[in-house]
Amino acid sequence: MIAMLTDFGTRDGYVAAMKAVISTICPSSLIIDISHDIAPQNIAEAKFVLWSSCPYFPANTIFVCVVDPGVGTERKIIAVKTKQYIFLAPDNGLLDMVLNEYNINQAIEVTNKKYFLKNISHTFHGRDIFSPVAAHLTTGIKFKSLGTQITLKKPKEILVSISGKTHCHGSIIYVDRFGNLVTNFKMKKLRPAALKIKEFTVPLKTTYGEVNEGEFVAYTGSSGLIEIAVSDGNAQKMLDADYGTTVEFKVI
Amino acid sequence: MIAMLTDFGTRDGYVAAMKAVISTICPSSLIIDISHDIAPQNIAEAKFVLWSSCPYFPANTIFVCVVDPGVGTERKIIAVKTKQYIFLAPDNGLLDMVLNEYNINQAIEVTNKKYFLKNISHTFHGRDIFSPVAAHLTTGIKFKSLGTQITLKKPKEILVSISGKTHCHGSIIYVDRFGNLVTNFKMKKLRPAALKIKEFTVPLKTTYGEVNEGEFVAYTGSSGLIEIAVSDGNAQKMLDADYGTTVEFKVI
Amino acid sequence: MIAMLTDFGTRDGYVAAMKAVISTICPSSLIIDISHDIAPQNIAEAKFVLWSSCPYFPANTIFVCVVDPGVGTERKIIAVKTKQYIFLAPDNGLLDMVLNEYNINQAIEVTNKKYFLKNISHTFHGRDIFSPVAAHLTTGIKFKSLGTQITLKKPKEILVSISGKTHCHGSIIYVDRFGNLVTNFKMKKLRPAALKIKEFTVPLKTTYGEVNEGEFVAYTGSSGLIEIAVSDGNAQKMLDADYGTTVEFKVI
Repeated sequence: MIAMLTDFGTRDGYVAAMKAVISTICPSSLIIDISHDIAPQNIAEAKFVLWSSCPYFPANTIFVCVVDPGVGTERKIIAVKTKQYIFLAPDNGLLDMVLNEYNINQAIEVTNKKYFLKNISHTFHGRDIFSPVAAHLTTGIKFKSLGTQITLKKPKEILVSISGKTHCHGSIIYVDRFGNLVTNFKMKKLRPAALKIKEFTVPLKTTYGEVNEGEFVAYTGSSGLIEIAVSDGNAQKMLDADYGTTVEFKVI
Repeated sequence: MIAMLTDFGTRDGYVAAMKAVISTICPSSLIIDISHDIAPQNIAEAKFVLWSSCPYFPANTIFVCVVDPGVGTERKIIAVKTKQYIFLAPDNGLLDMVLNEYNINQAIEVTNKKYFLKNISHTFHGRDIFSPVAAHLTTGIKFKSLGTQITLKKPKEILVSISGKTHCHGSIIYVDRFGNLVTNFKMKKLRPAALKIKEFTVPLKTTYGEVNEGEFVAYTGSSGLIEIAVSDGNAQKMLDADYGTTVEFKVI
Repeated sequence: MIAMLTDFGTRDGYVAAMKAVISTICPSSLIIDISHDIAPQNIAEAKFVLWSSCPYFPANTIFVCVVDPGVGTERKIIAVKTKQYIFLAPDNGLLDMVLNEYNINQAIEVTNKKYFLKNISHTFHGRDIFSPVAAHLTTGIKFKSLGTQITLKKPKEILVSISGKTHCHGSIIYVDRFGNLVTNFKMKKLRPAALKIKEFTVPLKTTYGEVNEGEFVAYTGSSGLIEIAVSDGNAQKMLDADYGTTVEFKVI
């Protein structure tokens, strides 16, 4: 199985060209789209979407991640292997949350042209490099044959565990389609607490059904992180918040 | 085959997580997306899209429908079986048009946790309940093993047959991407008639090619319901009409 | 394999109905979406997307292309066969770039109702004609059995080769999601040259990494045509350019 994550959108046929390349090399590939609607060149968005969805994929899935503002420059393409998965991505931070989650610092710099298309454009490595490499991996080539082994720098830790803490500073790391604001606070067990965001204090509840329409509420979202939402509303708009907006966690 | 209908959009990776869960449980599942771009929490929109597309699916398709503003509250999840299909949805009206079409009032309330993921989030039952249940159904488990049988209330009839009638009141029940306005009038045989909407009287024709550019026209749309369109234009915008706008049918 | 290109969007369930019809007739069909987000009735957009993505598809792919403002009128549906592919489309110019590329002037006018759905709507031939015809083709029916052979008029040449030329007039034929402007200039070998668009003179480079943030740059895009972009910006917006905006190529 191949899972695809890009910022190519679905209008231009770029994603289709990638899938066409994959199907030409390995006709039996199963492809699942994670998202192609990442905001153009928004690595932070891609990082979170990848981290939050990947644990649900079957073992041996190959993740092809192309949010790649540096395409055509000297940035590296890396391949990373965990117990269950293989990830292909530009070396631009897109894999940071995955590397921290699985505690990985080894990668292959993808350089073996044998697995690329013959003509490599300067602007579309998704089609010319990422897709054929992923397709060849599904046909059973050796992971190490992709290039040379390198050691990655440890990425900055994005997530903050609030277990046992009474006060904590953090920020919004993702905003979803519904306008829900995802913080970087990991929470395992609900405690009486509140989140401060802008001038508002938002109570921590089990779910957003527990407050009245139009009220702010915080709860553990489906990714295990605390989210801030408005019951039947759009928290992003109502709070005028965005990526990077600071939040405070406080036990009451 | 599994067909998916949600309001999750395609940016956030929510749909991908659902597909990943399905593929983990049943790797050979074929998944077709009906739509993930239903307006957030718009059950009326979902209802129509499901009803209009489902008859074209092959027998034994399982429809997974998650437009679910009540997730995390006490709302039920129901499974409904017709001669050809199985439908999974929240008990919030999403299946109303399907229940009326196939004349069904029996359902299973889905409660058997054996077929759920181990950890159930409060906000994402699409991933944690709907998807694994659908995947287990494709592996051949018994429909009745999903939970306990319940009898559903008969939903209000949405569609109105105009056969034999000379005058009829109705409303817009769907607006498509092209701005075409779908009414709730079912028509089998074209008669000389007109539709009144706002201050306009729109003639009933065979197809929208029969009027000049910029003119309003009504015709039987691809779902068998009368639609109002503008030749080479957007009827929704030109009429400032929307869901619920009233229409009148009159034989001339 | 079936590749689909439409302007139906992904919200309304139209594409799903097409896929459902295909899967009913040929359950083992593999379907790849080229795009469903072509601007409504924008044949120029569809033409380019088809031409630029089709060469990457495996042999024997059937392309189902439905951008069809004339549906329900007397326009023809045509099927075209190249060495590798079959294309189904309305006879409205959508296939022009493909016909020129593969130097084809023979087609079948698709008229054999044996391969259509039983009830043909006036507005949705994508579901009622295109999809079942494509599905029947994948099951191995003879291409010529689709209807009667016709000879097509040679389409106007859209692309202009600039090899060996020092000065050339052209225009923008596509604008992608990133706001990059695709010209109709085919370039094989980079020469010191510049493009004039509106009041700007844009240097030709190898890739957009070669200029500073916010600067205009021209380069050979992934389709082999010269594109105009802004490093880390949106050229369409900054130049207020669109389909048809004229450009000049000049060797320096």
